[in-house]
Amino acid sequence: MDRLIERIMEKGNPTAVGLDTRLEYVPDFLIQKHKEKEPLDFRGAAGAILEFNKRIIDAVSDLVPAVKIQLACYELYGVEGMRTFSETIRYAKQRGLIVIGDGKRNDIGTTAKAYSSAYLGRTTLLAEQDRAFETDIMTVNPYLGFDGVEPFLEDCRTYDKDIFILVKTSNLSSGDFQDLMTGNRRIYEAVADKVAEWGRDLIGRFGFSRAGAVVGATWPDQAAALRQRMPHTFFLVPGYGAQGGSADDIAGCFDERGLGAVINASRSILCAYRKGSAEQPAGENFAEAARDEVLRMKKEIGNALFQNGRKPW
Amino acid sequence: MDRLIERIMEKGNPTAVGLDTRLEYVPDFLIQKHKEKEPLDFRGAAGAILEFNKRIIDAVSDLVPAVKIQLACYELYGVEGMRTFSETIRYAKQRGLIVIGDGKRNDIGTTAKAYSSAYLGRTTLLAEQDRAFETDIMTVNPYLGFDGVEPFLEDCRTYDKDIFILVKTSNLSSGDFQDLMTGNRRIYEAVADKVAEWGRDLIGRFGFSRAGAVVGATWPDQAAALRQRMPHTFFLVPGYGAQGGSADDIAGCFDERGLGAVINASRSILCAYRKGSAEQPAGENFAEAARDEVLRMKKEIGNALFQNGRKPW
Repeated sequence: MDRLIERIMEKGNPTAVGLDTRLEYVPDFLIQKHKEKEPLDFRGAAGAILEFNKRIIDAVSDLVPAVKIQLACYELYGVEGMRTFSETIRYAKQRGLIVIGDGKRNDIGTTAKAYSSAYLGRTTLLAEQDRAFETDIMTVNPYLGFDGVEPFLEDCRTYDKDIFILVKTSNLSSGDFQDLMTGNRRIYEAVADKVAEWGRDLIGRFGFSRAGAVVGATWPDQAAALRQRMPHTFFLVPGYGAQGGSADDIAGCFDERGLGAVINASRSILCAYRKGSAEQPAGENFAEAARDEVLRMKKEIGNALFQNGRKPW
Repeated sequence: MDRLIERIMEKGNPTAVGLDTRLEYVPDFLIQKHKEKEPLDFRGAAGAILEFNKRIIDAVSDLVPAVKIQLACYELYGVEGMRTFSETIRYAKQRGLIVIGDGKRNDIGTTAKAYSSAYLGRTTLLAEQDRAFETDIMTVNPYLGFDGVEPFLEDCRTYDKDIFILVKTSNLSSGDFQDLMTGNRRIYEAVADKVAEWGRDLIGRFGFSRAGAVVGATWPDQAAALRQRMPHTFFLVPGYGAQGGSADDIAGCFDERGLGAVINASRSILCAYRKGSAEQPAGENFAEAARDEVLRMKKEIGNALFQNGRKPW
C-alpha cells in the first residue's frame, strides 16, 4: 500500500485503469489486423486483447499509478485468456505500474492458501519456488471469515503484498446481504470492523494497512462513513464512470491529506474512443482517447477533492 | 441437478471425488517419471498433475457420479495449471462424470456474466461462440447479492447447467459473518432463504432446483436444519474426511428418499495411498488406494443413511 500511495502522489492521480478488456471493446482496425494473421478463436482473441492492453498501458503508464485487471474477462477466453492475463501483468509491471488482480478469490484456509500463493506468494515446485501470476495486490471476498483471509495476510507480510477485501460493493444488489442489520451494525460494517482488526498490525508509513477494502463509488454516504470508521484502511473504489459514480461521490473516500483511495474506471477509459466523433469509426485513436479520458478523470477528481477540502497532492 | 441425481442413483453413491490436486499429492514414482522427461517447472508440474488426475478418474469413474475440481489448485500452477484444469474437465466428461468447478466466483452483474459464460455458458468470439471451460456445475459466492448471481442462473436455464451457492461453509471461521444474527435469522439462513427463492422456478423432476447450496459436513445440526428450511435445494457438502465431517454428520443433508446432497472428499481419496502399509513407499498403488477409499466411503455413507432412516437408493 505504501508503494501504491507513493505512486499516487508522484503522479498526482489516485486512479487505476481497469483492464476489464473483452473482445467487443477492441476496435475494428485491431480486430481486422489480427483476423488477417490467424482465426479469431480463443488464441486469436487473446492475442488481440493483449495488443489492445499493451497499447492502453503505453498510453497511460505515465499518468496512473496502477492498473486493475479483472480476472473474469480473461477466464472468459479460457487458457489463452489466462496467458493474456499473465502477459498483461508482466507488461504493466515493466512499465512501472502496480498491478491489482481483481479476482475476488475466497475459500477455506488450505485452499485460500493456494489462491494466495498463485497471486501474491510463491508456488512450490519440488525444490524451487516460482510465481504463477505476478500481481501486487489481490481482491478477496470475506464471506468465509478469518481463516479464508489469513493466508492472504500471511503472504502480504512475507512478500510485501496487499489485498483489498470486499466490504460494500458497487452493484445495486449489494444490499441484499451487505446491508442486513446485525445488532446495531449492517453486515458490511461488521465486515469493515473485521477488516480493520485483521489489518491492524500491517500498517505502513502513510498510516494505511496492507489489508484494504473495496468500497463502491455508487454509495457515497456509506463510503464517507466507512472512511471515518476505518481510518487505517485504504480503499479500492470501483463503480466510477460507466457504473454511475461521480467525482463528488468519491470525495468522501479520502482523508484531509487527499489520501485513502484508488479510484478505478474501466469501460469509460477502454471504450472512450467510441464516445468521440464518428471520424475514426475503426477506432485507430483508441489509445489517445483512453489517455484523454484518464486526463479528464484526473482533473475531475482533483477538482472534486479540492472543492471538498481534500488537498490534492 | 436432475442428471447429477440420476447418476447418484445409478451408481448408488452420493459422493464426488474432489480433484484438489497439488504437486505434493502426486506419488514419487510419477514425479520421477515426469522429471526424466522434462524439468518440473509449471509445465512439468501441470503435466504430472494431469496424469495423476486421469489415473484417479480411471480408477473411480464407475463408482462416483461426479468430480469436483478445485480451481485454486490449478491457478497455483499458472497458465499451465489452467490447461490441466481444462484437460481434466474434458477427460472426466469423456468418462461420463459430471464436473463441478469449484471456483466460488463472484462479481457485479456484468462481470459475473463473464465468469458464468466462461464456466457454464458460451464465450462470444466475433461471429461464433465457444466454451472456455466445460464445467457442468459451478460454485458461486453470494456476498454481492442477486445481481451477482443472476447471470449464472440465466446460463443454468439457457444451457442446462447448475450452480451451488455458498450458504454455510465447512471452515471453522465460517461463523465470523455467516453466523451473525439478522432479525431472528443467522446470515447463512438469510442467504439460504434467498437461494431457495432465486431457485424457485428452476426445480427439476426430482424436486430440486438448479440453484443448489454449499453446506459444510462439519456443521451437522445446521445442515439438518437447512435440509428442512430449503427442501428443494440440493446440497454440495464439502468437509468430509480430512476436514473432520463423518458419515453420521452428513445424514441430515438427505431427505427420506436418500436424496438431497452430494458429498465431496478430496485429500482422503487422493492421498489414500499414504495411509496404507509402507510396502509401496513410491505410491505405485495410488489409484487402487483411491478406489478402495471411494468404496469404503460409499459403504460408510450408505450405512449411515440406512441407520438414520434415509433409504439408500
